[in-house]
Amino acid sequence: MEFVLHPRLAADSYFVHRLPLCEVRLHQNAAFPWLILIPQCVDAVEIIDLSISEQEQLLKEIRITSQIMQAHYAPTKLNIANLGNIVEQLHIHVIARFNTDLAWPNPIWNSGHDMPYTETQKNQVLDALRLSCKQHGFL
Amino acid sequence: MEFVLHPRLAADSYFVHRLPLCEVRLHQNAAFPWLILIPQCVDAVEIIDLSISEQEQLLKEIRITSQIMQAHYAPTKLNIANLGNIVEQLHIHVIARFNTDLAWPNPIWNSGHDMPYTETQKNQVLDALRLSCKQHGFL
Repeated sequence: MEFVLHPRLAADSYFVHRLPLCEVRLHQNAAFPWLILIPQCVDAVEIIDLSISEQEQLLKEIRITSQIMQAHYAPTKLNIANLGNIVEQLHIHVIARFNTDLAWPNPIWNSGHDMPYTETQKNQVLDALRLSCKQHGFL
Repeated sequence: MEFVLHPRLAADSYFVHRLPLCEVRLHQNAAFPWLILIPQCVDAVEIIDLSISEQEQLLKEIRITSQIMQAHYAPTKLNIANLGNIVEQLHIHVIARFNTDLAWPNPIWNSGHDMPYTETQKNQVLDALRLSCKQHGFL
C-alpha cells in the first residue's frame, strides 16, 4: 500500500523537502516558524509503530531539522512534539519559539494566533529552509 | 558539576524510577496519566544538547516508557513532547491521552484541568508503574 499524506496535513502546510524517512513541510501559520516531519510509513500513528531502525532515522531527522531551525531562526527554545489527537497520521512538530512570540510561554496549538504567509514571504522561507537542508547535507 | 533536578519539576511530580539516562517522574496532575523523563545531564536544554549516544539512549527510554504507558493505560493516543518554555531544564513529557479525557483533543498544558492524586491513588499508580518498569526489564 502506498503512503498518502493526510489531507489535513496537506492543506495546512507546504512541501519543503523529502528526507530519507520523512517529508518535511512548513506549517502555513506564519505566526510561528513551524516545521512538520511526516514519516512516509503507511498506518504509523505512534512513534513506536515504527521499526527500531525507522525510529533511529526519525531521531536523526529531528536532530538535523532542529539544527536547521537553530541555525536559521536562533530561537529561545525548540518545541518538539508528537501529539496527533486530531490528525492521527504520525507527524512530529518542530517549532522555533521566541520569548517574544505571540503565544509564549504557552504551547502554540490552539493559541488563537494564526496568520497566513504572503506568497513572497512563503517563497523566501521555503527557499531559505531548502538552502539550509542543502548546507546540512540533505540535498 | 552534579545534576540537580529543577525545583519546579521536583515540586510538580513524584519520583517513579531511575533509568540509565533519565529519571522518570509522575506529574502530580491526576487528570491525565502523565510521565516526565528528565535526562540527568547538567545544563541540557534542547534534545540536541545531548551527545548522539545520549540522544539514542533517550529515544530508547522514550520507547520503553511509551510501551509501559500503552500496556498500562491503553490510551487513544500518546502525546510525546519537549517544550521547556517555562522550565528550561530538558524534560520530555509522555502522556496517555483518551478521547474521553477532559482536554481532548487539545493539548493538556494550560488546559485548566488540574486535580491532585489522593495518597492512596498516588501510591497505587506509582506501584503499578514501577511494576511495569520491572516487567519491561528496567529494574
